[in-house]
Amino acid sequence: MSKLLTIFAIWIGVPLVLLLLPCPSGLDPKAWALLAFYVAAILGLILQPLGEAAVLIIPLAVYSVCFKGTSIALSGYSSSTAWLVLAGCLVGRAFTETGLGIRIACVLIDKFGRTTLGLGYVAAFTDFVISPATPSNTARSGGIVYPIFRSISVTLGSEPGATAKKVGSYLSLLCNGVSLTTAGAFLTASAPNLLLFSLAVSVVGAEISWGEYALAVLPSLFTLLLLLPLLYYVLCKPELKKIDNKAIARDGLQKLGPMSAQEKKLALLFLSALALWSSSHWTKIDAGAVALLFIAGILFFRVISWDSMLQEKSAWSTFIWYGAMIGLSSGLSKLGFFKWLGTVVMPYFSFAGMNPAMVMILLIAGSFPLRYIFAGVGPYVGAMVPVFLTLAKAGGVPPILAAVSLCATVSLGALFTHFGHGVSVVIYGGGYVSQTTWWKTGFIMAIVANAVVLGIGFPWWAMLGLW
Amino acid sequence: MSKLLTIFAIWIGVPLVLLLLPCPSGLDPKAWALLAFYVAAILGLILQPLGEAAVLIIPLAVYSVCFKGTSIALSGYSSSTAWLVLAGCLVGRAFTETGLGIRIACVLIDKFGRTTLGLGYVAAFTDFVISPATPSNTARSGGIVYPIFRSISVTLGSEPGATAKKVGSYLSLLCNGVSLTTAGAFLTASAPNLLLFSLAVSVVGAEISWGEYALAVLPSLFTLLLLLPLLYYVLCKPELKKIDNKAIARDGLQKLGPMSAQEKKLALLFLSALALWSSSHWTKIDAGAVALLFIAGILFFRVISWDSMLQEKSAWSTFIWYGAMIGLSSGLSKLGFFKWLGTVVMPYFSFAGMNPAMVMILLIAGSFPLRYIFAGVGPYVGAMVPVFLTLAKAGGVPPILAAVSLCATVSLGALFTHFGHGVSVVIYGGGYVSQTTWWKTGFIMAIVANAVVLGIGFPWWAMLGLW
Repeated sequence: MSKLLTIFAIWIGVPLVLLLLPCPSGLDPKAWALLAFYVAAILGLILQPLGEAAVLIIPLAVYSVCFKGTSIALSGYSSSTAWLVLAGCLVGRAFTETGLGIRIACVLIDKFGRTTLGLGYVAAFTDFVISPATPSNTARSGGIVYPIFRSISVTLGSEPGATAKKVGSYLSLLCNGVSLTTAGAFLTASAPNLLLFSLAVSVVGAEISWGEYALAVLPSLFTLLLLLPLLYYVLCKPELKKIDNKAIARDGLQKLGPMSAQEKKLALLFLSALALWSSSHWTKIDAGAVALLFIAGILFFRVISWDSMLQEKSAWSTFIWYGAMIGLSSGLSKLGFFKWLGTVVMPYFSFAGMNPAMVMILLIAGSFPLRYIFAGVGPYVGAMVPVFLTLAKAGGVPPILAAVSLCATVSLGALFTHFGHGVSVVIYGGGYVSQTTWWKTGFIMAIVANAVVLGIGFPWWAMLGLW
Repeated sequence: MSKLLTIFAIWIGVPLVLLLLPCPSGLDPKAWALLAFYVAAILGLILQPLGEAAVLIIPLAVYSVCFKGTSIALSGYSSSTAWLVLAGCLVGRAFTETGLGIRIACVLIDKFGRTTLGLGYVAAFTDFVISPATPSNTARSGGIVYPIFRSISVTLGSEPGATAKKVGSYLSLLCNGVSLTTAGAFLTASAPNLLLFSLAVSVVGAEISWGEYALAVLPSLFTLLLLLPLLYYVLCKPELKKIDNKAIARDGLQKLGPMSAQEKKLALLFLSALALWSSSHWTKIDAGAVALLFIAGILFFRVISWDSMLQEKSAWSTFIWYGAMIGLSSGLSKLGFFKWLGTVVMPYFSFAGMNPAMVMILLIAGSFPLRYIFAGVGPYVGAMVPVFLTLAKAGGVPPILAAVSLCATVSLGALFTHFGHGVSVVIYGGGYVSQTTWWKTGFIMAIVANAVVLGIGFPWWAMLGLW
């Protein structure tokens, strides 16, 4: 109880003190007031005195009433980004409900699952294949992919406890690593990416299309994805090597029955959305509009019902808190806060003459200790990315290079802990891996993964002309 | 099946034909294209080929992709009106879940429920008291008030069928009449009011504060509310006259137990919201911001949980379709559609030299036959109010007078049928009243109610200086 009181005291006290302090010179007092509410939002997400939606609605409401800020407070809810997040989370439900996600896995298991390592590659590819349309990692990997491989582990006689190392602990850690890797591979593969680029537009004016982003990060993230099953195989050797994959696939497909009309329609809609997203650089069709059309198609062709979508509660909570963050941060941007922040922090950081890649590597590596504090990638992005983007700009890094390199690695930073991302919480909850093992493996893998992605990334980004 | 096909054909065909027709001269082609999607939205709400949210999301998505209209399509979701609707619907749940709504009824029954007529007044007052904070009539009257009086009817030995006339049919019809009357009494007592004034701002620039609206309509609507129990008593005489109200109230209060902390907090928050709404004319605090603060208070003081709010599915569906309507209609307004409509329709309607009150009475009475077509007040408002406001302006009616008189009577028009409003569907579903009786009583009551409200209203509005 006293812990809860402390949390509430910090959550309310810090913003209140900010409000009472005089506005620093050179900054619009309106921006200073709004900053207090942005800080309340971020602190709320970190401390969690109440749920995510509640800790955002409360500052929004108080700001609206006390500062007549309704139009700024609500502006995020008409942003295409917030709707991309909502629509994407709802699409995720369609993959679960129709069984299309499981079917993809079964087919891959049948073809490539003869060994435990093969099974690992199947996990990686299943997650990768559906990632462009499922910005909720927790829904994609925690709700579709991991349950399949956990039930395979059980089938193979590997349960939490004595038999965990047979295959279950390997597949658990791998599924987590895969999820945090595919998260960065597409703008639409993880909700925090969308928040990150919405901040990048506000803070440093860095914009990117869906296709350009994929082009920029796929070489490095896909290489990492190919390495993951091997790396985890070395770090966390499974005792079982050979698998009767035909039987597993046959059982799974039998349970699903023949491919339903719903699944076929979903597959077609998914391919159409992919086509529209990847061509958006030429068609100039907004990614949020495509996601909205995807949802419209699902409703029109009755793939899943609206009622089902309403049951996907986490989608609605996410919409509420993302929309709030987007509104608050773009309000701060309009009021000139980030420009002011740049002029203030610049003198304290000397990146003089440093290579832009070096600046970004320093910033990203410097952020690692912070990952032990943040539960969830979204709050981390909201709190730290504006600061990093400002610092990077001060260090002479082209804004688009800063945004791309941050976005490609931001989910990998969640590898450190078992609470760094919602999907990790789910997989850790599966019980196959001890916290000690999780943190040890996580530490090694986070370093390796960042090294791989940035090591391939920077030369590639130079070739693309990003710096 | 062929009926469904016809419905889909009309829903898709009519907007498609509009899109293919050349744009009328004098109108922005962008407005003409947007009109086709607005028509699709309205037709969707009337024909209901799919649920309300789906028939709005589909046109929004197609418009966003085909006409690059994402920002217009989504603009409604950051409007304070859409959030007022959402927050209000969520507050309704708090009244149900905490039992505060039932408690208010029990206390009133204990004091005033000695006769059937007295019970009728209790129904009217209970509904009236909570109406300012419950813009979902269906939640307020269908979810809180009617269930209480239906269970009282059963307790008194009046069930659907042979014993319906004992008291049940009287209370059913009365609850419906009361709900459609209180609906007009406050801007926040019914979601369509908010849509109506958001249209009034777009179409003719008529704005009003919460307090000004209440001041304008309460004299007439409160008089009507006082007459309703008597009028229905005459039209639908209950056989039972005396009631053992003390026993009913005691039983009800016993079931509820002592007043919980949740109820007390809700009552306080409710009174605070009322104070803020009714003073908004002076404080200039936006009504949507107050509703948001009400929700924030409910979450902060843990009156009900966020999870409960997510379970209130109709609130979310309503938010989606209202937000879409508001976005589309304000888009039409920005593109100059309503101005153009005015110049087009004016020559066909001659209100020359006519008294503004007469013009409005003609328009409202002329709209009665339409009420047999529309299921729900929201779709009716979306389709007809822009037209009526335009006609009224053409007829020299001051915009604010037109908007107020339409808003005060728009819910009363739902009296005609058992499907004119969601709350009627719920009460009719209670089974105490046959369709014939419902329509007969409804016809008489709709005429009488409109006559009372407009008869008192116009002189009062003249005194207030609205015309």
